[in-house]
Amino acid sequence: MNTPDDILKLLKKYNQTIEGEIDAFLKKGKGKTSFPKKGSVSDMYGMMRYFMGFTDETFTGSKVYGGKRFRPALCLLLADLYGNDKGKKVAQKGAASLELFHNFSLIHDDIVDKDPIRRGRPTVWKVWGADYALNTGDAQLVLSNMKALEACEIDAKRGIEMSRFLFEKYLEVIEGQHLDFFLSALKIGDERVNEKSYYEMIGKKTAVLVGAAAVCAGIACGKSEKEQALLWKFGYSLGIAYQLNDDVVSIWGASEITGKISFNDLREKKKTLPVIHAFAKLLEKEKKEFEAVYDKDVSLNEQDLKKILSYLESTGAHDYARKQVLSHLKHAESAIAELSVSKEGRDILLNLSKMLLVEVK
Amino acid sequence: MNTPDDILKLLKKYNQTIEGEIDAFLKKGKGKTSFPKKGSVSDMYGMMRYFMGFTDETFTGSKVYGGKRFRPALCLLLADLYGNDKGKKVAQKGAASLELFHNFSLIHDDIVDKDPIRRGRPTVWKVWGADYALNTGDAQLVLSNMKALEACEIDAKRGIEMSRFLFEKYLEVIEGQHLDFFLSALKIGDERVNEKSYYEMIGKKTAVLVGAAAVCAGIACGKSEKEQALLWKFGYSLGIAYQLNDDVVSIWGASEITGKISFNDLREKKKTLPVIHAFAKLLEKEKKEFEAVYDKDVSLNEQDLKKILSYLESTGAHDYARKQVLSHLKHAESAIAELSVSKEGRDILLNLSKMLLVEVK
Repeated sequence: MNTPDDILKLLKKYNQTIEGEIDAFLKKGKGKTSFPKKGSVSDMYGMMRYFMGFTDETFTGSKVYGGKRFRPALCLLLADLYGNDKGKKVAQKGAASLELFHNFSLIHDDIVDKDPIRRGRPTVWKVWGADYALNTGDAQLVLSNMKALEACEIDAKRGIEMSRFLFEKYLEVIEGQHLDFFLSALKIGDERVNEKSYYEMIGKKTAVLVGAAAVCAGIACGKSEKEQALLWKFGYSLGIAYQLNDDVVSIWGASEITGKISFNDLREKKKTLPVIHAFAKLLEKEKKEFEAVYDKDVSLNEQDLKKILSYLESTGAHDYARKQVLSHLKHAESAIAELSVSKEGRDILLNLSKMLLVEVK
Repeated sequence: MNTPDDILKLLKKYNQTIEGEIDAFLKKGKGKTSFPKKGSVSDMYGMMRYFMGFTDETFTGSKVYGGKRFRPALCLLLADLYGNDKGKKVAQKGAASLELFHNFSLIHDDIVDKDPIRRGRPTVWKVWGADYALNTGDAQLVLSNMKALEACEIDAKRGIEMSRFLFEKYLEVIEGQHLDFFLSALKIGDERVNEKSYYEMIGKKTAVLVGAAAVCAGIACGKSEKEQALLWKFGYSLGIAYQLNDDVVSIWGASEITGKISFNDLREKKKTLPVIHAFAKLLEKEKKEFEAVYDKDVSLNEQDLKKILSYLESTGAHDYARKQVLSHLKHAESAIAELSVSKEGRDILLNLSKMLLVEVK
């Protein structure tokens, strides 16, 4: 059982588990935030369920796509591979907490980015306004922490350890958002816009939560510190590879499969790895031209875009970024090789990792 | 030791304890959200320390007034009265968590209400923008949960129980904010604007956190469920009395002592208890006139204000609201009488409660 189809089937199973756990949890809030009147609805928990893909805008059932659920699936898969019954139960709390947290962060990110659409549907702020979206996100953050703490009912020691670990990682994700705001506001030529800063930012904003999903399974199953360190190396490296690959896809990956608009990250003048690499490689005179285009207050026009693309090509930015993706993937693979799971388990993890990184050119 | 001066001295002692605990905690974040460059500062933890009153806008030390710290002081006082060493240590974590949570909620409320000033200084969104304020509030919410969980290091069982209890109460406060948004948007004549809804909203938004502060001490000191129920009755009733008293003060309490602008809640057409009471008592014809003024999209002018005030007078709204304050205070006092603390302890709690409710007319 290790073809892409097998793996998709496996992920689907975990998705159902985690969605069941989360929806039952959110349904407990029914009626807690509404003053009843015929035909009137105001429901904070309904807003969460809508965003998770469990209801439509009127809070009636209509299950739709609510995200890949990659983090919780990874956590549940690893707990399954460790094959420990109590561990699986504890991991399920952690996995649900991770998915609740991830979606909380998206509800708030959408407000900040003014994104009107996510997963093909209007975002929370777009439907109910920024005030309710801010408030609903806050509540979902608390719920994600409550869900982690539920693990203490199964095993106090592991539950405390897992909650403490997760909360620390959640904090780092929010730190990553701060770093992202800060980097985004800098001009491309600022000395602080460099690969090191960029890795620090995506590390916190994206990779930490993948690493946390993996380690969560280790804590839940009572694994050694050494095993947990391997899980971290695996998840964190995979998270970095995923983000870097997304950087490549968001520039060169226009297609019906990825759903991306061509060169979108360039049009929006994002300072992702290919851009940072290209800029660093340019001559002083070229840097000036690059800055004149990229530091403008408006989106790039077609002519500007062409110029930036030519610089990305002349500096080999695509191949450089792709090389980094593979290097981080290799790092993740070397961790997988040492994990104390079965040979079959390692193969599943290897294939899952590759599947996550859709290659483009 | 039970004069107002003695009590103020006592509160000051607890303030210092709690501020020390929180500032040391926030200082741990130093450097985690900044890319170093001479003369440049970006610091999420600095923003929190600024809001708490520990620094100025450049993140350099300058301690200023950062709030009454009433909730943590109440928690520490009760733990002191129970006189249990381990309990005091656990309570200190809960108290710090409560104060961090309370201030998180203010950071986010200020964004929503577009309030530029709090405690005499610019709010976080006003200084650093709404995006950073949203993000910083999120982080402080996680920190408040982490702080509660720290109690597990002192006593796992009590730490888990206290964290679970606090997270549930935090969620209720956020539910209260949702209810507040919802009630605020309704017209004064809507059937859902009534005393019951109002009590539910202020109960969650304000009273829950005072009740939580009291119960927190009980959990920390390993007190019985019966004692915890008394603590809840005391804290919750006091919280309701406090909010209702604030409603009175915010209409009739203009003075140098309270720092309130006269009739401010009426100018902003807030639907607090005196207004809800007055409207319910009016004849149909008067209701129409009241609605014509109160449902306008703009603040009240002097003439409108005069009309509303005359309705509040003719329906005895001031005395009615003040009567409710005293009734809830009495409820709190009856709980105090049954608490298993010393006679002196009960006297301190009684006087503290009265001090909280500045009377006006």
